[in-house]
Amino acid sequence: MPHRPDMTGPPIAESVVEMMATDAFSSGLGMRVLRARDGHALVGLAVTPELANGHGIAHGGVVFSLADTAFACACNSFGRATVGAAAEITFVAQALVGDELAAEAVLRTQFGRTGIYDVTVRRGADVIAEFRGRSHRLT
Amino acid sequence: MPHRPDMTGPPIAESVVEMMATDAFSSGLGMRVLRARDGHALVGLAVTPELANGHGIAHGGVVFSLADTAFACACNSFGRATVGAAAEITFVAQALVGDELAAEAVLRTQFGRTGIYDVTVRRGADVIAEFRGRSHRLT
Amino acid sequence: MPHRPDMTGPPIAESVVEMMATDAFSSGLGMRVLRARDGHALVGLAVTPELANGHGIAHGGVVFSLADTAFACACNSFGRATVGAAAEITFVAQALVGDELAAEAVLRTQFGRTGIYDVTVRRGADVIAEFRGRSHRLT
Amino acid sequence: MPHRPDMTGPPIAESVVEMMATDAFSSGLGMRVLRARDGHALVGLAVTPELANGHGIAHGGVVFSLADTAFACACNSFGRATVGAAAEITFVAQALVGDELAAEAVLRTQFGRTGIYDVTVRRGADVIAEFRGRSHRLT
Repeated sequence: MPHRPDMTGPPIAESVVEMMATDAFSSGLGMRVLRARDGHALVGLAVTPELANGHGIAHGGVVFSLADTAFACACNSFGRATVGAAAEITFVAQALVGDELAAEAVLRTQFGRTGIYDVTVRRGADVIAEFRGRSHRLT
Repeated sequence: MPHRPDMTGPPIAESVVEMMATDAFSSGLGMRVLRARDGHALVGLAVTPELANGHGIAHGGVVFSLADTAFACACNSFGRATVGAAAEITFVAQALVGDELAAEAVLRTQFGRTGIYDVTVRRGADVIAEFRGRSHRLT
Repeated sequence: MPHRPDMTGPPIAESVVEMMATDAFSSGLGMRVLRARDGHALVGLAVTPELANGHGIAHGGVVFSLADTAFACACNSFGRATVGAAAEITFVAQALVGDELAAEAVLRTQFGRTGIYDVTVRRGADVIAEFRGRSHRLT
Repeated sequence: MPHRPDMTGPPIAESVVEMMATDAFSSGLGMRVLRARDGHALVGLAVTPELANGHGIAHGGVVFSLADTAFACACNSFGRATVGAAAEITFVAQALVGDELAAEAVLRTQFGRTGIYDVTVRRGADVIAEFRGRSHRLT
């Protein structure tokens, strides 16, 4: 059963606010954290021309980075420093310049210092990518 | 047995030169294609402060993007348009601001329009990440 | 949003009944299909001494096989021949001889002839493994 | 650079001989360990009718199990108890009843208690599956 986020309280945990304040890469790409609490996060990104690859679509690394930041926001939302240890991504549909993307991360299961999170990247209702990450809590 | 690249001929296939000329994201991050021929590629990147995350290390998306570009250069080096369909990455060690990284992609196996490529990201002799990508040839 | 199975109708689609009737490996291991409809399946297995590895726990291949059969039942429940193309599994906890396991497969997303399914293997409420499979519809 | 196995010494490390002596599942399926030393292993299996699935080909779980046992032999060949923590597999070609398969596992990289191993399952020169496993050393 996926973890059910608590919808009360501030939308972004203090630990995530602090982490994202110094995340130069995510803010440089234009990511906006919309929610990050209780193992659940939502992050938005507009695909600008600077984020395209040589095929004229969003670079796979951009889509991965968006999912990875949502994953980092979700797994750090509990207030203890946690890093990504591994991830896999399936590219479902191309994202084009001008698209507005949103990545939603949900805690799937936790054991010891490890967490498994599922992240779906969407453009509106369309799925762009499915990502699964494994996190490692440092402390 | 991994594919053995042919070391004669120009170091970067014409198809890759053309693709990378319009890859705004890879060049914006500072990536440099060093070799790309016969299903094998080598791409370099310096970790600048703009590429760090909120833990002060290279964002996972940066390491993934470097591997993904090396993968794209390798799978497009045969001259037919090919896209990444899926990938998985294991983060072996942290990359710090100031590090010089190099990603080496090698074709592992091919069947139908699908290719499996292994990419290792290194800082000198140290492994930073192991990546495996699945490509899909469009034509 | 995960696919919501329709709970009306017979619990096991006719296409799955036919497929499992000739699945010598799954029945030889002792698997029992409990439900398989509309992209959703539930399959049970008791861990007998024959299924243990040299560490005295269920062989990783046994846990994978149970998840893979649940995946096959789910992706063939729509009535068109579909095969597994790839899968990844994380082993969350050990399964011991004597444990009763259940694997639940759910369709996550579909595009073209490809499907992505999530399978969780449990012993009661405890998660034993998380599996994600990619299917390919043949017809 | 993949780990190069040392080809001197007995072909199967004592730690692997002991482990496989009690691996009921692998021997029940008919697996034969041909080599296991220094992070490298080779395991054979004949596809009997009992190992087929409902499509009349080797069950995905059989191919995975063969790769997983080769992985276990390789990562336990150093003499310290090590378990599989995660794995991913891509099915490249179908294996038929009557086929003789061989899985070859090679250590790719090691860090802390973690190892990454690549396993290729072949029928003669043809690739049947590509597997990558992550091991965790217990002691």
